Amino acid sequence: MTSIRSELESNRVQELDQLLKLVSPKILEYVAKADPNSDSYQSNSLGTYHEPSELKEKLLTHHDRLDATGIKDAPLGELEDVIDKVLNLSVNTWNPGFMDKLYASNNPIGVISDLILSVLNTNSHVYTVSPVLSVLENYIGKKYAQLFFTNDQQTCGGLTFSGGSWSNVTSMQIARSLKFPETKELGNGNYKFAVYTSKHCHYSVEKAAILLGLGSKNVFKVDILADGSMDVNSLKSTVEQSIKDGYTPLYINATAGTTVFGSFDPFTEISEIARKHDIWFHIDGSWGGNVVFSSTHKKKMIGSHLANSITANPHKMLGVPTTCSFLLLPHVGHFQKAMSLSAPYLFHGNNDDEENYDLADGTMGCGRRADSFKFYMTWLYYGQQGLEERVDHAFNIAQYFIEKISHLDGFELVVGSKESPPQCLQVCFYYSPEGYKSKDHTEATRFISRALHSKGKYLVDYSPNPTSQDGKGEFFRVVFNSPILTSEVIDDLVESIVAAGKELEL
Amino acid sequence: MTSIRSELESNRVQELDQLLKLVSPKILEYVAKADPNSDSYQSNSLGTYHEPSELKEKLLTHHDRLDATGIKDAPLGELEDVIDKVLNLSVNTWNPGFMDKLYASNNPIGVISDLILSVLNTNSHVYTVSPVLSVLENYIGKKYAQLFFTNDQQTCGGLTFSGGSWSNVTSMQIARSLKFPETKELGNGNYKFAVYTSKHCHYSVEKAAILLGLGSKNVFKVDILADGSMDVNSLKSTVEQSIKDGYTPLYINATAGTTVFGSFDPFTEISEIARKHDIWFHIDGSWGGNVVFSSTHKKKMIGSHLANSITANPHKMLGVPTTCSFLLLPHVGHFQKAMSLSAPYLFHGNNDDEENYDLADGTMGCGRRADSFKFYMTWLYYGQQGLEERVDHAFNIAQYFIEKISHLDGFELVVGSKESPPQCLQVCFYYSPEGYKSKDHTEATRFISRALHSKGKYLVDYSPNPTSQDGKGEFFRVVFNSPILTSEVIDDLVESIVAAGKELEL
Repeated sequence: MTSIRSELESNRVQELDQLLKLVSPKILEYVAKADPNSDSYQSNSLGTYHEPSELKEKLLTHHDRLDATGIKDAPLGELEDVIDKVLNLSVNTWNPGFMDKLYASNNPIGVISDLILSVLNTNSHVYTVSPVLSVLENYIGKKYAQLFFTNDQQTCGGLTFSGGSWSNVTSMQIARSLKFPETKELGNGNYKFAVYTSKHCHYSVEKAAILLGLGSKNVFKVDILADGSMDVNSLKSTVEQSIKDGYTPLYINATAGTTVFGSFDPFTEISEIARKHDIWFHIDGSWGGNVVFSSTHKKKMIGSHLANSITANPHKMLGVPTTCSFLLLPHVGHFQKAMSLSAPYLFHGNNDDEENYDLADGTMGCGRRADSFKFYMTWLYYGQQGLEERVDHAFNIAQYFIEKISHLDGFELVVGSKESPPQCLQVCFYYSPEGYKSKDHTEATRFISRALHSKGKYLVDYSPNPTSQDGKGEFFRVVFNSPILTSEVIDDLVESIVAAGKELEL
Repeated sequence: MTSIRSELESNRVQELDQLLKLVSPKILEYVAKADPNSDSYQSNSLGTYHEPSELKEKLLTHHDRLDATGIKDAPLGELEDVIDKVLNLSVNTWNPGFMDKLYASNNPIGVISDLILSVLNTNSHVYTVSPVLSVLENYIGKKYAQLFFTNDQQTCGGLTFSGGSWSNVTSMQIARSLKFPETKELGNGNYKFAVYTSKHCHYSVEKAAILLGLGSKNVFKVDILADGSMDVNSLKSTVEQSIKDGYTPLYINATAGTTVFGSFDPFTEISEIARKHDIWFHIDGSWGGNVVFSSTHKKKMIGSHLANSITANPHKMLGVPTTCSFLLLPHVGHFQKAMSLSAPYLFHGNNDDEENYDLADGTMGCGRRADSFKFYMTWLYYGQQGLEERVDHAFNIAQYFIEKISHLDGFELVVGSKESPPQCLQVCFYYSPEGYKSKDHTEATRFISRALHSKGKYLVDYSPNPTSQDGKGEFFRVVFNSPILTSEVIDDLVESIVAAGKELEL
């Protein structure tokens, strides 16, 4: 009988070798041209804006291959062309001018961790197929949780979800499932659940309430103080009024590092209200939670040990590759208690340990990429001291920027001051070019932001005020979150803003 | 004034170069020892089972580094030791004996795609920061959807979610949001929503109903036929009875490739019931949906164009690295219609195109890794023909196994026969070693499965029957889903099962 075989992967080793040899120098070059410390540095390597139509025309040049035999059988140059275009038309986030979002560039250990995860290509849902990755996730999840849950060192722990939103969603499900266990079988039923959060929270809190069938109208958005943090008196009266109105209080979300202002809510005071009314107390620390790594800044997380759950994303402040988001609990066993359906075809559940290593059983999902591994490797690589240095450096750079613009005409902080700086790593500010008369800054902000991007050197974001209707319009939100930022880069950024402002026709 | 700078990433290019040079030969060696076509092949390279306690002892040898300065500043050998342990104590899924789960090994283009994604390290939530990845996701999502939604070629499309479960969850949310738009604001309210699925569906359908606040008791699990597919008569009467009982029918889930048996539900007949009662019709094709790539096997998906949504996972049958799961819709605009909250601080929404490229706006999440890129690259690399060959080869191997065991004593298929084989790529069977007297096969199945694993050569899964209480106990579920499988591997697998059975003390 003839052997049955396929040629598709008959040459894996040589092929992988060939592709690694093709791609490795390209990515080194890609990093080098974005690195001010490299001889190949090009300040405009961040890249410029392209409209989708333009990108489609440039990118989709080999798509006849999709319908035929594939690029595998073509000369290697064809694949190389695709890879070159993907790299060169993307935003090069290794460039220090990438200050647009709350994450920074990847780094060497991040790339290697992703590469190892890719080679392992297993699923961290069940121990049998992912023993190492499951053990490491439990280990690092606990070690991470211990930074927050100082009173629950033995029992705390964490699992990863594919982004802060999904960690927040999961926390709300755990809250409902543990506080109202009958809802697992019966659904929300006649409960009129209420969720409380500040007006400056991330949209995922509202989306979570929609997804859980609670409805966005039953998310009470509490007022904020001038610094963007939650007004606890407003929370108190909102909770009390909602109870009078027949609501069942379910969940309070407090934010550590809000999306726009970077504010921290007052956790201890919030926890008192939560405890009084027996409400689940969650902290969305996706952005700001990782100040716990800094002796100087961890005071912003005071009271986090009182939370029932905390989201914290190493892929933001700690430079772990996206995505890497943890949901942390004071009692790690509650993941399974809240989630398990004991599917016997998957979870055979026998090992010599009291911990659960079939990690998906503690989630609402099944297949999982072990994002935790990237955090384990990053922490191991830089150590506690390195991560602290990373966080502190970013705060120092933000402070440098604030001091710098405080001496210059036209700059105005939206929140905070030189003496009482914004609480996290982003700085929100208006800039009025000389002679700019409009009270509304939207036009100037957008013009300058686009002008910076058009030079391929800086990408910075802008935003309206989430709450105030003061007519001042949109402002810059620039994020200082990378060890490659230096005071020289900031000097140049400020000069570039001023220069771009001069191009605005008044 | 002194410059403010950090040394943490001051040497990115050299460091990345060094780490790539350290890891590249290791992963080539890792693949080579698992590859029967390589001179370095070791049949036992799949690895053996380790208890968690044993792994912890071996793995966590450098964890003092976590609390100090990190391995970065230690001799390179220390990091090398960690990487070696991670690789060598993991299950080597490149070994052809990895037949345990519904995914297979990675492959060269998969590794490279993951590497490029890691270097780009951006977030495919907003076009500005991920222009290329957003355009490619829309492009490949549409092309993929066109294989299923043959009547909606112009409007169909898809987005990725972090696994089949999350795609299924999202489909249920879209169903509720589009059919009962007031639920977005008001929650489930007084609706008593019903969900229908077969008894052999994946647990994520039930978990989705729990997450959405519908409750697991309101998931009606319909009977199956002998081949494991949904009994449409039972569905019909269940739906009708539930309406009489005051339920509002929301969602029917049909499965393309059930988890245990690999059965395909009858989509056309199910769609008629769905249409009659105005119920959302979803197909969970996480596992089996990709038979659409095969001219021979795509008939199993007949009727898929009648679905309102389809989950399909390239990370399973198509060998794309985990995770890569798409939710596909006949009208791609419905993602945003169902999901958007128009958060103005993130989604500025201006480009020259009618499509939405701020992809997160069409999801319940925010940050996203662009899993779609790995599928784009895989499809481009192998082409339609290569993916067809991949699927067909796997079916041929499964068929070869079935024919082989049909001639041997002690083997008995749980579902299907030589003439009418199981519908997907897994084969469920009992094996009774010579002299095995027990009607319950659990002991023999588990013993043999462990014996195979203990040799480091084969990892195969086992399961109880999800529905039948016939006392026959657990059976093998072996998955044939890789181009590296050959008839010779199957011959050896069968011999190994028989040999392991002889070791069982009767």
